[in-house]
Amino acid sequence: MRYQLYYWTGIQGRGEFVRLALEDADADYVDVAREEGDEAIMPFLRGERPGARPFAPPFLKAGRLVIAQTAEILHYLGPRHGLVPKSEAARLYAHQLQLTLSDLVVEAHDTHHPIASGLYYEDQRPAARQRAEDFRKTRIPKFLGYFEDVLDKAGGRHALGRHSYIDLSLFQVMSGLSYAFPKAMKRMRRKLPRLNALADRVAGRPRLAAYLASPRRIPFNEMGIFRHYPELDD
Amino acid sequence: MRYQLYYWTGIQGRGEFVRLALEDADADYVDVAREEGDEAIMPFLRGERPGARPFAPPFLKAGRLVIAQTAEILHYLGPRHGLVPKSEAARLYAHQLQLTLSDLVVEAHDTHHPIASGLYYEDQRPAARQRAEDFRKTRIPKFLGYFEDVLDKAGGRHALGRHSYIDLSLFQVMSGLSYAFPKAMKRMRRKLPRLNALADRVAGRPRLAAYLASPRRIPFNEMGIFRHYPELDD
Repeated sequence: MRYQLYYWTGIQGRGEFVRLALEDADADYVDVAREEGDEAIMPFLRGERPGARPFAPPFLKAGRLVIAQTAEILHYLGPRHGLVPKSEAARLYAHQLQLTLSDLVVEAHDTHHPIASGLYYEDQRPAARQRAEDFRKTRIPKFLGYFEDVLDKAGGRHALGRHSYIDLSLFQVMSGLSYAFPKAMKRMRRKLPRLNALADRVAGRPRLAAYLASPRRIPFNEMGIFRHYPELDD
Repeated sequence: MRYQLYYWTGIQGRGEFVRLALEDADADYVDVAREEGDEAIMPFLRGERPGARPFAPPFLKAGRLVIAQTAEILHYLGPRHGLVPKSEAARLYAHQLQLTLSDLVVEAHDTHHPIASGLYYEDQRPAARQRAEDFRKTRIPKFLGYFEDVLDKAGGRHALGRHSYIDLSLFQVMSGLSYAFPKAMKRMRRKLPRLNALADRVAGRPRLAAYLASPRRIPFNEMGIFRHYPELDD
């Protein structure tokens, strides 16, 4: 089966978590909007297509199923592509970790959009500075400290004791935060040896390395979730 | 099996979505922190208990499983208590709807805490006014318009065509938003006839009505997610 991934063109965004899983699994998929344009997304959002109506991208068409919400898509793909252990306990735990990463991603986004996602960053700069400061000083250490500990408890190399989509998502979060907050992350890196080593290992996986070097990997930019505004960094 | 629910005392918060499901299903559960105090939560957050380590409450102990993240707990409870149809497509759809409600709940929280969840509301009032205005004018209509349409497409009475935990969660969101933003919600109510009727029907379900009238239902207050600050309303 050929999956159809729908996500806004031009940014990695939340779609990237799904792309990393599909690429790492060597799954057959088409990134629809990058072939047909963002308009291809709209009929689904308007409820004009069969299957569940998504609230927002990313969503994945798998046969007749339309599956939305990043963490749910990974929860669906994981067992089908060997990206999560098979036991119910492990799948639930993986999903919880991914949902916690989703919470972190919302907070990363809100550092540059603390007032309204529909306004420009430039129109909410003072609040963004304040929110970003709290995010760097309080929230990143809390979230990443938690995941460093998750790795530690599982033997140090993998969040679930073996390769899984959580490792891929941790790579993505470490990459995004390092892009957005290079100074703060440089400062914090010493306290996160396992996360750093994990991110390096994931980037070196043959299929992932090929993907990351390909034009399919959109560079980070200032339209996505992880944005580099120097005034929001340390 | 007797479930053990762990959530902060004194607020409905995210725990309330789980309570509504457990109460509606007449499930055997104990609300641990309300019996033993918030300290009962801490060993789990510190990773000192067997099973998955949660990042934050609510979490549910079901036998040896520790299940965290509100939407995941409901995804787990749903099929075990007849609170979701059994097909995979329906379960995925329900979970997506609940995750979308979780996104709405984050945004509702951030109206009073747009800068930092660790600061007092009083220390982020100007930003809160701006964020709340956008939430009332843009985000509530977008989210609730989506769910009104979900109801409409499913026949008008239930989000999934029959009773499910999504109906319970929609009741909770309608209640919380009406508490926090009574003027804005009064204005919007005319456009949301199905959601309003659904919320009334859910509140009238015998077990739910008994729960809502009991001391187990904590009143809304200004420590929870849905807070009534008149200056944040219309």
